[in-house]
Amino acid sequence: MKWISFKKGGRDSFGIVKGDEIIDISAFFMESECPKTLVDLISQPEKLEHIINQQEAMQGAISCKDIQFCPAIVPANNVLAVGKNYRKHVLEMGSAKDIPEAIMIFTKSKNALLGHRGTIPLHAEVTDELDYEGELAVVIGKQVVDVSMDEAMDAVFGYTILNDVTARDLQVKHKQFYIAKSLDGSCPIGPYVVTKDEIPDPSKLRIKTLVNGELRQDGTLDQLIFPIATIISELSKGHTLMPGDVIATGTPDGVGKGMKPPRFLNAGDTVTITIEGIGTLENQVM
Amino acid sequence: MKWISFKKGGRDSFGIVKGDEIIDISAFFMESECPKTLVDLISQPEKLEHIINQQEAMQGAISCKDIQFCPAIVPANNVLAVGKNYRKHVLEMGSAKDIPEAIMIFTKSKNALLGHRGTIPLHAEVTDELDYEGELAVVIGKQVVDVSMDEAMDAVFGYTILNDVTARDLQVKHKQFYIAKSLDGSCPIGPYVVTKDEIPDPSKLRIKTLVNGELRQDGTLDQLIFPIATIISELSKGHTLMPGDVIATGTPDGVGKGMKPPRFLNAGDTVTITIEGIGTLENQVM
Repeated sequence: MKWISFKKGGRDSFGIVKGDEIIDISAFFMESECPKTLVDLISQPEKLEHIINQQEAMQGAISCKDIQFCPAIVPANNVLAVGKNYRKHVLEMGSAKDIPEAIMIFTKSKNALLGHRGTIPLHAEVTDELDYEGELAVVIGKQVVDVSMDEAMDAVFGYTILNDVTARDLQVKHKQFYIAKSLDGSCPIGPYVVTKDEIPDPSKLRIKTLVNGELRQDGTLDQLIFPIATIISELSKGHTLMPGDVIATGTPDGVGKGMKPPRFLNAGDTVTITIEGIGTLENQVM
Repeated sequence: MKWISFKKGGRDSFGIVKGDEIIDISAFFMESECPKTLVDLISQPEKLEHIINQQEAMQGAISCKDIQFCPAIVPANNVLAVGKNYRKHVLEMGSAKDIPEAIMIFTKSKNALLGHRGTIPLHAEVTDELDYEGELAVVIGKQVVDVSMDEAMDAVFGYTILNDVTARDLQVKHKQFYIAKSLDGSCPIGPYVVTKDEIPDPSKLRIKTLVNGELRQDGTLDQLIFPIATIISELSKGHTLMPGDVIATGTPDGVGKGMKPPRFLNAGDTVTITIEGIGTLENQVM
């Protein structure tokens, strides 16, 4: 299933995409029992089961053309991200000595979440070096702690695309990554969350990032230094993961800072990130 | 006013402490209008005003002895923390070259929040070096962005005490601080949130941390490298702060890692952090 969170006529909702249409969540439940957000639903397995059983026979009633995209997961419980998880990206940013021996985890502000087609602010008053990072993001579907690598994938609800927009000058200046990664609007996510049954082997996925139509990043998920099961297992050690947690898995080489000379984002630029089987996340910088 | 979040008879609530008694929030509102949490209340200035006007004439009906403390702010919107913000703490952990020129911000997991008298898990399966960090924490009361240093203190709702429990081996291993700072139960906070009108000059506060009654940390808030107004102003640059955001302001020297030889926490240890005018946060390690 392909989940969408959207706004229509001033109302926030979410639902399932079928072809070019959306089945609104309200089609499945009486008002008093209807989950308010996708995260709310993910936390209630019996309601999710009800939808899985019903949806085959149902038709969408809202055209995808008539809605505004919200962040694919909102409100996220926590937005976690893995740093330096593709070898060639580590090399373009530094040298072989920077290749991590243990996962490096930082968070991005929940307030920074932005929907597909939302505008990424340039933040020219605080940074001269705004950069993109196309990433596959995992959405956690269960409360888990201390899960083994074998059990780790059971915790996954689905996958989406995340642009880990980063102010490179602030990343150097403030050392810990949070500030550089959490400017308002610096976390485009979407357009859809695709459930894991549709993506049996995420290591086969391919991620491409274009800026104004020019190919900048082209990576495959089998290049991850720490694969998804390792990330979830490591992160769950003594640390409870919750439904609605988002984990961005890292970015391949080809970011603006890695180019010679560096090419940072400018007002008017369009960043387009595509992962086949999930969709295309597109945002303009302004 | 001194706010407390608590559990009594299986029910979560919050209220105002007067002497040894609590006025439950339900005393101020009809059930349909009653805020569910302190963060919920903070976000509604007209309700806060109503309480300020009523509370003088009211008496508490619940004894502080009959309740279990919840984390002083729950659910926090985000738990932010400033690293390396006391010169002598920077020196005990490294050398003068580590004194930061810009604020260093990381986050702790919301799931790690723990109340006064709650048990800090030792997490012996993931760390051999669990350490304490006594800190003053600021609770944000308003949605703000790009505030000047002059306006920064207007965003403060109040103050509390936070133990920024840290796994030192994981802090070194994972480089970015999130993992080392976010083990379950590693964020004791409380016992109270004291509103800022009762603390006209937080730089006059003094913070003491004891382990099993032995004084380990003794710092004053005028020693902060980045004072509170600077932290809020810097952090708000292009980054919206929300009611219920918690900002831990950093820890003075005297942590276990800084001792020669280092003295990390063991099962059975009691960590007691006192800030005069706010209270004493005590937690046992198990």
